[in-house]
Amino acid sequence: MSPKITGELLRQLRQAMKNCKYFSEPIQAYIIPSGDAHQSEYIAPCDCRREFISGFDGSAGTAIVTEQHAAMWTDGRYFLQANQQMDNNWTLMKMGLKETPSQEDWLISVLPENSKVGVDPWIIAADQWKNMFKALSSAGHSLVAVQDNLIDAVWPDRPERPSTQLRSLGLDFTGISWQDKITTLRAKMSERKITWFVATALDEIAWLFNLRGADIEYNPVFFAYTIVGMSTIRFFVDLKRLSDPAMREHLQLDSPSKPELSIQTFPYESVYTELQAICAALGPKDKVWICDKASCALTQVIPKTHRSPIPYTPLCLGKAVKNATEIQGMKMAHIKDAVALCELFAWLEKEIPNGNVTEISAADKAEELRSQQKDFVGLSFPTISSVGPHGAIIHYRPLPETNRTLTVNEVYLIDSGAQYVDGTTDVTRTMHFGTPSAFEKECFTYVLKGHIAVSAAIFPNGTKGHLLDSFARAALWESGLDYLHGTGHGVGCFLNVHEGPCGISYKTFADEPLEAGMIVSDEPGYYEDGSFGIRLENVVLVVPAKPKYNYRNRGSLTFEPLTLVPIQVKMMNTELLTQKERDWVNEYHRKCREVVGAELERQGRQEALEWLIRETQLII
Amino acid sequence: MSPKITGELLRQLRQAMKNCKYFSEPIQAYIIPSGDAHQSEYIAPCDCRREFISGFDGSAGTAIVTEQHAAMWTDGRYFLQANQQMDNNWTLMKMGLKETPSQEDWLISVLPENSKVGVDPWIIAADQWKNMFKALSSAGHSLVAVQDNLIDAVWPDRPERPSTQLRSLGLDFTGISWQDKITTLRAKMSERKITWFVATALDEIAWLFNLRGADIEYNPVFFAYTIVGMSTIRFFVDLKRLSDPAMREHLQLDSPSKPELSIQTFPYESVYTELQAICAALGPKDKVWICDKASCALTQVIPKTHRSPIPYTPLCLGKAVKNATEIQGMKMAHIKDAVALCELFAWLEKEIPNGNVTEISAADKAEELRSQQKDFVGLSFPTISSVGPHGAIIHYRPLPETNRTLTVNEVYLIDSGAQYVDGTTDVTRTMHFGTPSAFEKECFTYVLKGHIAVSAAIFPNGTKGHLLDSFARAALWESGLDYLHGTGHGVGCFLNVHEGPCGISYKTFADEPLEAGMIVSDEPGYYEDGSFGIRLENVVLVVPAKPKYNYRNRGSLTFEPLTLVPIQVKMMNTELLTQKERDWVNEYHRKCREVVGAELERQGRQEALEWLIRETQLII
Repeated sequence: MSPKITGELLRQLRQAMKNCKYFSEPIQAYIIPSGDAHQSEYIAPCDCRREFISGFDGSAGTAIVTEQHAAMWTDGRYFLQANQQMDNNWTLMKMGLKETPSQEDWLISVLPENSKVGVDPWIIAADQWKNMFKALSSAGHSLVAVQDNLIDAVWPDRPERPSTQLRSLGLDFTGISWQDKITTLRAKMSERKITWFVATALDEIAWLFNLRGADIEYNPVFFAYTIVGMSTIRFFVDLKRLSDPAMREHLQLDSPSKPELSIQTFPYESVYTELQAICAALGPKDKVWICDKASCALTQVIPKTHRSPIPYTPLCLGKAVKNATEIQGMKMAHIKDAVALCELFAWLEKEIPNGNVTEISAADKAEELRSQQKDFVGLSFPTISSVGPHGAIIHYRPLPETNRTLTVNEVYLIDSGAQYVDGTTDVTRTMHFGTPSAFEKECFTYVLKGHIAVSAAIFPNGTKGHLLDSFARAALWESGLDYLHGTGHGVGCFLNVHEGPCGISYKTFADEPLEAGMIVSDEPGYYEDGSFGIRLENVVLVVPAKPKYNYRNRGSLTFEPLTLVPIQVKMMNTELLTQKERDWVNEYHRKCREVVGAELERQGRQEALEWLIRETQLII
Repeated sequence: MSPKITGELLRQLRQAMKNCKYFSEPIQAYIIPSGDAHQSEYIAPCDCRREFISGFDGSAGTAIVTEQHAAMWTDGRYFLQANQQMDNNWTLMKMGLKETPSQEDWLISVLPENSKVGVDPWIIAADQWKNMFKALSSAGHSLVAVQDNLIDAVWPDRPERPSTQLRSLGLDFTGISWQDKITTLRAKMSERKITWFVATALDEIAWLFNLRGADIEYNPVFFAYTIVGMSTIRFFVDLKRLSDPAMREHLQLDSPSKPELSIQTFPYESVYTELQAICAALGPKDKVWICDKASCALTQVIPKTHRSPIPYTPLCLGKAVKNATEIQGMKMAHIKDAVALCELFAWLEKEIPNGNVTEISAADKAEELRSQQKDFVGLSFPTISSVGPHGAIIHYRPLPETNRTLTVNEVYLIDSGAQYVDGTTDVTRTMHFGTPSAFEKECFTYVLKGHIAVSAAIFPNGTKGHLLDSFARAALWESGLDYLHGTGHGVGCFLNVHEGPCGISYKTFADEPLEAGMIVSDEPGYYEDGSFGIRLENVVLVVPAKPKYNYRNRGSLTFEPLTLVPIQVKMMNTELLTQKERDWVNEYHRKCREVVGAELERQGRQEALEWLIRETQLII
């Protein structure tokens, strides 16, 4: 992977920063966040501005360019990758390390007095704007909104915004009609005396209307906004997409059942002026709900006295707790996904000794096998197919110039997932097709112990996910090891593979308490730079637990694995496992064999079935 | 314990709330926080306003009185106690339970439109003021500062503010001179470009000047403020206390070694006007550091553009990391404390069958035995000496009317500690002097497992204490049990028994990362209302650990118990312990026997020594 040459681009950007065409005065620094106007994690090519200016294409990162410096903040998953993709013009700021300054502190340390720091107000979230604004102001600088995006100004061949075909989902997939979701939302609004709700997150809008799109790779979402009042629904989307009669029927555009469920449609771009019009007509007590992660541009349309910012919207919370139909769909999707992976691993076992399998061909094979499964739509994120040292690049994605051959001498890590109409998957397995070293096995076993500690944990109702994070690390910590990423994220149902508001992380973000029906990943790891990477990831469902006692009648929760793919016994040092941990592995493998075995048999995939049976032998 | 009759008092308070003598308009609600003007946890009798108005005397709680309601917020330690001490005029708000509204939400739900909510600005911390101000404003109400305290207005015989004799500590106790502490503070100020620092926390001021007082029971502190500039030191204290020649010598009041180490003294009350004068003379770039937990009154003296609020002051952080002299002192204090407790338990074992020992007499005996130890100053908090159901009242304090006799049929919990000139102790043991039930043993063993899980944990440098909290709960959670308090708090060295900025709690307050030299408690528990309480508490020192590996050269930490008092084996169900846990108990008891045994022998306390040897037999 050779770094992007950015000298000339940075020169042009710095010229634009000085150009009073864009802002009335020259600006001394320009912030380039990752996101789009919806604060999406994955973004469309037209929104990949941070990648364009720096070359670094990881999913998380913020660039800041000053007259003298260009710096990139990203987290532990991306330290190696960012170093490889960026040229010498860039300084990597390793987030999570003690010595790394925050963006604010760094700006304050490098800026001349009374500097102006610019940012596109559509791309920066309102809460980030607020924090940055405060920090800069207190140091005598100012944060200014530059309406024209300065990266776009130096990006002549920037792609168009996508507008793919929409897909409507029936009750057999969603469990709840969009009309009922609107009614529930309005009940929550009236409970909190809220008169308007502005939805800006693409997955929330897709979930609300039981619609899916393909505007952003891997994410079945589409560019839209929605503003819901107590008796009106405004839907902002490229109107061409609503011409299909089935779509019009789904949204009841031509004959709404009730007036308050009638959807008014508007062009995507008109959300700003329409929200302005709504705000101009607000009564003195009217309150508007908007997520504090929505864009600064849209948030600031709402007068402060009417604004009721919330860390998570009711749609975000509603979407996180899966209903029975969604849970059933997720289970089905994971069984199909396991079928494809069992086939992949059986195939790898056979083919690797021939020396013809590479990181890319293995990833392609995984996609091909998944695509044979019913209701397959596409991948849920770029497959991380990594051999040996590449495994330590946490979000590695094989490219032709980095592509390595799988051998019987190195650890292979594959983190992959798919979108099916009934659910979204995300699974990581780490395997050795020869004889792993004692150290590789030792590390794998600590990671497994952490995975089990989370998966088998019983905890009170109302517990926040971050309180479980250390369980995943205890075995690694005991040996002086650790990993620099969170342990788990929420997973959507035929939606984004990363979703809020729950998760399992050492970061004390305001995560919502776990409750039955939520679905998260459990994925501790260990990464030995330059040598190998280990990660074990299952998607797990939060379910009620029934321990011996029930303190203060609070009830208890635990996790049920939805992912049902064997964990390689060859990589375990079973002597390091407790009896309880061995029992967990055996019970997990029993379930894989029973559930996925039956499906493999039904589909007549004999070789994979044999592999599954071999890989699920009891350990003692 | 009979509740305080508060009907007439509340009537008077409500009259004062309407009286325009105190505020220009009637106020509809009055907030009565726990603290004093220094936001102390323990307070002098003159500051016990919340207790005076409600009867509830727990260490934490906030009262709010409206025209119709009187409500008290407190946490799980105090639910039972508050219910017993308050009459029917009061509603208990159980913090930490999902259904309990926050103070803000409750106020908004009960207040008529456009209400005024009053509070004494000296008693409310600046950060609390800010949050409350925002929440009330957004709901159309206002928070107003009432300069005269309204409780004082209805409290005719309110005690005087104490002014006890000061004690200076030499380098043999403190390890660092106050002059060096000032120099270190100024270095941190200049690193952050801060020109003034305002110290308001009493323990920080005591630590800074190597002085101790006795103004607040159990806390060796004295009422004072300090303002440190880059070349001046202003010390605000009752000037009578500085007349002693030794004290003047300690502070170099008459012949400072250097001009910038010359202390200017002022009367305690003049801090407000003196800070006003300093602020009036601030240059445009001057910045003033003040803790965001300082009083709203003093904080608001500093113009916002010059104010640099910090969650923890450099004194707080400096004080938390004990130096070698302080650690040595803490170790000595804990050995002496263990001698006293071994004697106590040997005496209890002998006396309880005679039926003459009560909760109060046991607590008195503990104090008497401690007072025989060298450099004993007093208790570090009111002894919690609780039998059977009283053990479930987490901060129970025996009173003549509640006093229960210790028997061989009930669990006995004693949580106690002392101030010695060389250190502060805090230890809880739970014992049975007959035959505990299987359930009592089971719960005790889960608590022990949690205690060991924290104490033996190895974790990376830079880990915050809250990430260890769940280790203390995992065994309880697995059986559906829990406890509604944090797991540990910082402990001062001959200072407050509760101190920041580190701790171990599920609450995600902004705790500072643990580092070697910090001292915290490890005290999980289990409380069966109406039946028994279990808590196991050691004070532990953060020390470097040397595990097998050293990931990214970060280094690892673990805990070394300073408390060396046997944990009753009779209460353990050893079958529930793992081999590692049994090894931990045996090693802990070996150390108790070795270290405390030697001291018991030196002091010739034979019966206690025999008890110690009996109680530290190996378990298998």
